[in-house]
Amino acid sequence: MKKILFLTTGGTISCEVTDDGLEPKLKGADLLKAVPELRTLGDITVKDLTLLDSSNLEPSNWSAWARLIGDNYSDYDAFVMTHGTDTMAYTASALSWMLIHLGKPVVLTGSQIPLSLTNSDARSNLELAFSVAASGLPGVFIAFGNKVIKGECAKKIFTRNLNAFESVNEAPVLYFGKEGVKKNLPSRENYGGFRVEEKVEPKVMAITVTPGLEPEIIDYAVMRGYKGLVLECYGAGGVDTKHHNLLPAIRRAVKQGVKIVCVSQCLFDGVDLSLYPMGILAAQAGVKSGGPMTLEAAVTKLMWSLANQPEEEE
Amino acid sequence: MKKILFLTTGGTISCEVTDDGLEPKLKGADLLKAVPELRTLGDITVKDLTLLDSSNLEPSNWSAWARLIGDNYSDYDAFVMTHGTDTMAYTASALSWMLIHLGKPVVLTGSQIPLSLTNSDARSNLELAFSVAASGLPGVFIAFGNKVIKGECAKKIFTRNLNAFESVNEAPVLYFGKEGVKKNLPSRENYGGFRVEEKVEPKVMAITVTPGLEPEIIDYAVMRGYKGLVLECYGAGGVDTKHHNLLPAIRRAVKQGVKIVCVSQCLFDGVDLSLYPMGILAAQAGVKSGGPMTLEAAVTKLMWSLANQPEEEE
Repeated sequence: MKKILFLTTGGTISCEVTDDGLEPKLKGADLLKAVPELRTLGDITVKDLTLLDSSNLEPSNWSAWARLIGDNYSDYDAFVMTHGTDTMAYTASALSWMLIHLGKPVVLTGSQIPLSLTNSDARSNLELAFSVAASGLPGVFIAFGNKVIKGECAKKIFTRNLNAFESVNEAPVLYFGKEGVKKNLPSRENYGGFRVEEKVEPKVMAITVTPGLEPEIIDYAVMRGYKGLVLECYGAGGVDTKHHNLLPAIRRAVKQGVKIVCVSQCLFDGVDLSLYPMGILAAQAGVKSGGPMTLEAAVTKLMWSLANQPEEEE
Repeated sequence: MKKILFLTTGGTISCEVTDDGLEPKLKGADLLKAVPELRTLGDITVKDLTLLDSSNLEPSNWSAWARLIGDNYSDYDAFVMTHGTDTMAYTASALSWMLIHLGKPVVLTGSQIPLSLTNSDARSNLELAFSVAASGLPGVFIAFGNKVIKGECAKKIFTRNLNAFESVNEAPVLYFGKEGVKKNLPSRENYGGFRVEEKVEPKVMAITVTPGLEPEIIDYAVMRGYKGLVLECYGAGGVDTKHHNLLPAIRRAVKQGVKIVCVSQCLFDGVDLSLYPMGILAAQAGVKSGGPMTLEAAVTKLMWSLANQPEEEE
């Protein structure tokens, strides 16, 4: 039987109804007690980390958890983490970058409806997550609803629907549909050499390009010490290059060493800066293409790469 | 035969291949010449407005075009506008707010592949747009790919896929699927009293809430004279209320008369500030729920309402 370390952080799955709305209260032991069949899927050890709504998590949490997984790596076969859905895709992306040559499963899950309420999706999501953990498939995943998704491809696209997460620009690892299970399994090859690079540079801001946006927001971010910017551009990577021309401010920022990555406001198909003059101009000004990355993947990758690979910056 | 005013603004549909990437070159006469069958759908008059990539449009363009539609309202039965896809959802949303009690069709379209290239979707999109115009269905719509979508529900979700637009949180007006056409027609009732309120307050900024975001960005926006902010929150409306607590800055902004609306980073299901403590706290701090609105709808509605309904601000 696989040894599984069960990490809990709070989120809707742990919530109970209070006068102030839903608040996380249940710890790992409570979750296991409510879903005893999980014990059939592994030899489970519980470690409660936080009891937070995931809106209140921050980059330092990702670092601490990556380090913790590293510290326990040789003692367990797999890791399951319960987490609020709101920032689960950020955490899953961050762990994907931090856990290098990961040879074991790290599976995040949660629920849209608290375990403490009827019709909760918590039980089925926990069972899915522990099943993936028991399978030994290496990698960081979100197991939720009808899908198992690579951490860095996951995005919450539904506020309420139980199949809350989408696998963006890559088929889900597992998809449970009307016609059975569709698989898109990553290579199980274990390269060895697992290590943790958990450092993170939190001074990264996402800037949404909207019509009429004044370029000074970029100068402000530089002035405030932001080291990285994720520009949420239009379509394939469009920014205003005429009346509210963003390019001079982008050039000023890049000159000061700020790294700028662009992603698309479109959910699917990603960015291609080679297609249109504004994309070409943005690339010439120093904007890096985020390619198929989600906002979550781009923000966390920038935070991580700024802190861990300074020598590769130029 | 219906009299249709055909307005062109540029965009991919008008693009030709140049050394600098795709650039808009074709005018309305060129488009009509390339798709002569459009002439069978209406008595078409062309008016070329701009020849721009839609990343370079700005709020004043929406105002000018709403005014122009108003000025020509009694002379035409319908309006078709070609437009770049990148900000088409912003323009369609803006026109939806500006054209009040609209009793005629205003149909936006464009293409993912330039009309000048083979396999372009321009012909079929133009035919769809002129068909909707000829139908007399009142309202602002985007006709594109396999869908006709209400202007204020439209969002470009694919960078490349020809069915680029999604109807968010409401079924499309028309959906052409494998099993035929699905209809969700709005009421054809014409209330009369058409008028144009084209004013717009461009000082509206969208702020994406990401883990570790420092609240000072809100103070900066106020200092820079922004009158409205659209907070792109997590899930049902989550913002950080602990280590990087956004609430004090939100309160300061609201106190100074800045209007703050929140939308979700999740594509579907919208915002509900009553569910979780952070939503409840945000609402208490003065954040208004954007409900099911897209980012595009929320940004343009805020720009419009700040300029046209100052008396309703409190």
